[in-house]
Amino acid sequence: MGEEVSAALVIIGNEILSGRTQDINLQYIALGLNEVGVRLTEVRVIADDEAAIIDSINSLRVRHAYVFTTGGIGPTHDDITSECIAKAFGVPLRRDPRAVERLLRQIKPENLNEARLRMANIPEGAELIDNPVSHAPGFRLGNVYVMAGVPRIMQAMFDGIRPSLKGGARMLSKSVTIFIAEGTVAAGLRDIQDRHPAVEIGSYPFVRDGSFGTVIVTRGTDAAEIGATAAEVGELARSLGARTEDDGHPPA
Amino acid sequence: MGEEVSAALVIIGNEILSGRTQDINLQYIALGLNEVGVRLTEVRVIADDEAAIIDSINSLRVRHAYVFTTGGIGPTHDDITSECIAKAFGVPLRRDPRAVERLLRQIKPENLNEARLRMANIPEGAELIDNPVSHAPGFRLGNVYVMAGVPRIMQAMFDGIRPSLKGGARMLSKSVTIFIAEGTVAAGLRDIQDRHPAVEIGSYPFVRDGSFGTVIVTRGTDAAEIGATAAEVGELARSLGARTEDDGHPPA
Repeated sequence: MGEEVSAALVIIGNEILSGRTQDINLQYIALGLNEVGVRLTEVRVIADDEAAIIDSINSLRVRHAYVFTTGGIGPTHDDITSECIAKAFGVPLRRDPRAVERLLRQIKPENLNEARLRMANIPEGAELIDNPVSHAPGFRLGNVYVMAGVPRIMQAMFDGIRPSLKGGARMLSKSVTIFIAEGTVAAGLRDIQDRHPAVEIGSYPFVRDGSFGTVIVTRGTDAAEIGATAAEVGELARSLGARTEDDGHPPA
Repeated sequence: MGEEVSAALVIIGNEILSGRTQDINLQYIALGLNEVGVRLTEVRVIADDEAAIIDSINSLRVRHAYVFTTGGIGPTHDDITSECIAKAFGVPLRRDPRAVERLLRQIKPENLNEARLRMANIPEGAELIDNPVSHAPGFRLGNVYVMAGVPRIMQAMFDGIRPSLKGGARMLSKSVTIFIAEGTVAAGLRDIQDRHPAVEIGSYPFVRDGSFGTVIVTRGTDAAEIGATAAEVGELARSLGARTEDDGHPPA
């Protein structure tokens, strides 16, 4: 196994916690990080609340190679992420001329009021993150990447950031569907897990047409060992008389 | 405002963090808690990892009236939530005859192997949570409610728990859609927010048919004040020449 490079995500927004909005940013970021060998190991969803934002950022940024945030960088009174990040790092928040210039690509000068100019308030020392959708930038300060919450904008920002991330060995996975209840194969699965400690074996039961089945996902950084582990899972299920279905491609 | 009763949720599962599975439990729980006057204020998504589970539970259970967990209570080696909760509380995990009896409602005695019996390992002093779908129970220990991760089962467990929760004043909300960019109304919104500090005003921009609009959500526990706040938002937008659309019902 290569060195693991971990990341945390902080989803900032009352609308997620109230249930008004279904978050879809976590999954997008998780899958994207995996492509570059960075592993999302911790996520927090918190309110638009100064203490919650500062505490989360400061506890996570020392534990992870990367921290990403989504939400709270718009023009309204409830958008407080940028000022909280500045406080978390103990640096001033200031009007950034580079950010003002970007806002002017989208907004006519006569419409660039004080509220919209708040989107150009960036912590000192931060690097801007491109927003090809609506131009109001995100920013990176240290290992913390601050992005918009609107999925279309977040995705564009994240896609721009991704090539610059320095990942470790990529997590590969392979799945085998076994048409047998997970309780029936659990002991055998544990034996396989014990023989392959570097492979993570996940077991996800389902019911289809009234029959029990289980998707077994094997994950790790060594393709050969993942493949061997998945093969043992298939053999285990067939030895118990169950039909199996391989995902039909090498660990990816 | 009534006294606020807060809750935290811990989503336990590598499959959420890897992006394999889109979580839908957060939203279900958030909306359900709101119905009984409990406010979800913090969510963590963590791996099937002993230290992560124990740390999260012990830091959250002292800060919130209720803590809910989803995931990790099945029969396989990666299901470690129950033993971690026992460790977090410093109580033994033991085979619970009440839980064995429930497993036997679903599983034939000859199929009740050691792996499946792990689902009857419950921390000492815990109360079982009904699982009307597949019978393997969840449990409550202190203020921590441990539920399955499979949404259909989680929902059934949560629906059973909900009537027993003691909430505070219910959060009511009303939304007004204003067909104007949020940056244009941001200053006015801040003034309205300052006049109604007990109401939480959220601003959610959208683009529809190439035009900017904003959904303004007003939330609080006092229906009259929410209604008044929403009315002021509508007046603000109309004073700027924008069309507005009220959600057409009293704060709910």
